[in-house]
Amino acid sequence: MPDFKEIRSRDNSLIKLVSRLQSSSSARAENGLFVLEGLRLCSDAFLNGIRFDKLIVSFTAADKYNSEISEFSAIADECIKVPDNLFEKISDTKSPQGIIALCRIPESAARSISPAGRYVALENISDPSNLGAVARTAEALGADGLIVSSDGCDPYSPKVLRSSMGTVLRLPVFVLDNFSVQLKKTGLKTYACVVDSSAESISEQKFSDGCAVIIGNEANGLTAKTAGEAFKRVTIPMKGKAESLNAAAAAAIAVWEMMK
Amino acid sequence: MPDFKEIRSRDNSLIKLVSRLQSSSSARAENGLFVLEGLRLCSDAFLNGIRFDKLIVSFTAADKYNSEISEFSAIADECIKVPDNLFEKISDTKSPQGIIALCRIPESAARSISPAGRYVALENISDPSNLGAVARTAEALGADGLIVSSDGCDPYSPKVLRSSMGTVLRLPVFVLDNFSVQLKKTGLKTYACVVDSSAESISEQKFSDGCAVIIGNEANGLTAKTAGEAFKRVTIPMKGKAESLNAAAAAAIAVWEMMK
Repeated sequence: MPDFKEIRSRDNSLIKLVSRLQSSSSARAENGLFVLEGLRLCSDAFLNGIRFDKLIVSFTAADKYNSEISEFSAIADECIKVPDNLFEKISDTKSPQGIIALCRIPESAARSISPAGRYVALENISDPSNLGAVARTAEALGADGLIVSSDGCDPYSPKVLRSSMGTVLRLPVFVLDNFSVQLKKTGLKTYACVVDSSAESISEQKFSDGCAVIIGNEANGLTAKTAGEAFKRVTIPMKGKAESLNAAAAAAIAVWEMMK
Repeated sequence: MPDFKEIRSRDNSLIKLVSRLQSSSSARAENGLFVLEGLRLCSDAFLNGIRFDKLIVSFTAADKYNSEISEFSAIADECIKVPDNLFEKISDTKSPQGIIALCRIPESAARSISPAGRYVALENISDPSNLGAVARTAEALGADGLIVSSDGCDPYSPKVLRSSMGTVLRLPVFVLDNFSVQLKKTGLKTYACVVDSSAESISEQKFSDGCAVIIGNEANGLTAKTAGEAFKRVTIPMKGKAESLNAAAAAAIAVWEMMK
């Protein structure tokens, strides 16, 4: 195992950085880094060939998870050990396992979106557990990637990483500013999912390669601009009194129809 | 507005009962009562003709929501006002609106399940937000009801009521002991959703009236008994590395296929 540097002060700049990265999406964007916490997520990332900028472990974890940490340390640029009570300060969970990796946010230029792929696009999704659930569904059903608007929740937030069960580490994720304009530039045939009984049913569509389904914000749906610029407006026909499907349920049905 | 009785002591038996009903599913079962909290859920119930056994409001809410509370009080067997700080003790939310109704849990005998209906059956779902999401999907897509095993989370818990957005007040909900046996007795053709690439795809099924899709526990899926006694084992074909779909996403796809 490589040498682990010890940090014991909560005023250390790295310690402060980790805390900011845990809580702030703008800190993640500025530094180009996100936090992976816990054995499961770090193992997932390790198995997917993701490099660790820093590996930070608690004294207890260094013993308890010695073999895993030894593997992780081989792909880490720098390894750090901290006392358990200091680890608690930088953890996002109530019962920390004592393992954190800082990783680089992958480049996600819109130009890397394949014109022959099938994508799930999310406009301004605000609930991290919805974003995580959609990422899981998208991967399970074989979509080529996830496209999200930059005004929605951050796909590299701790909550999304957890609720996606690490899916966002494997599935290509593209974060777009100026969502509707950039999405149009990709050349994908976009199907805007709207709550409108006069729109065609999503089950009647003939999806071909080079397409995306777009799901909107939980409370407000898609913006008029995004729905207006889409190749087609489609709907999931509803019968009950519910105002609409939950965003993750709507996405599951839309991705299922697109991929089957 | 009818007379509101005032209660000011936290040792009052009704106050203690409400606290127990908020937190304990066995208390709900013993008393045959559940708690509806907040203006939205109470309005939903009111509009659906659900009677209120008790209506309990805080002093502040009695003024602030005077017109709504006046309507509610007309269908309540008994109306009670409590000081705001006492209401906080019986509330399940961080920022209580000050309105609680106690309602009777509807009878849900398995014999009332229509042999010509289309149902969503859930075995041992443990996450209230999953149960709530499935109820919302089931109603939105027009299913005739929700069948849940009694070992799963309680459909009348505060979290399920909130996450279902009141759907469980409108959709018939059947809670079955001895799930697989009772489900079989309904005579419905049951489709057990399993993670098994050798099972037939759910998209290849010809659903006809008198059927149910069955979704299992988040971590363990369906029990062997339930899957074994089903009319058919079906699967949602998966391509990615994800171990399985989230239960609510799987249910959305299964209900969509059953109802379309």
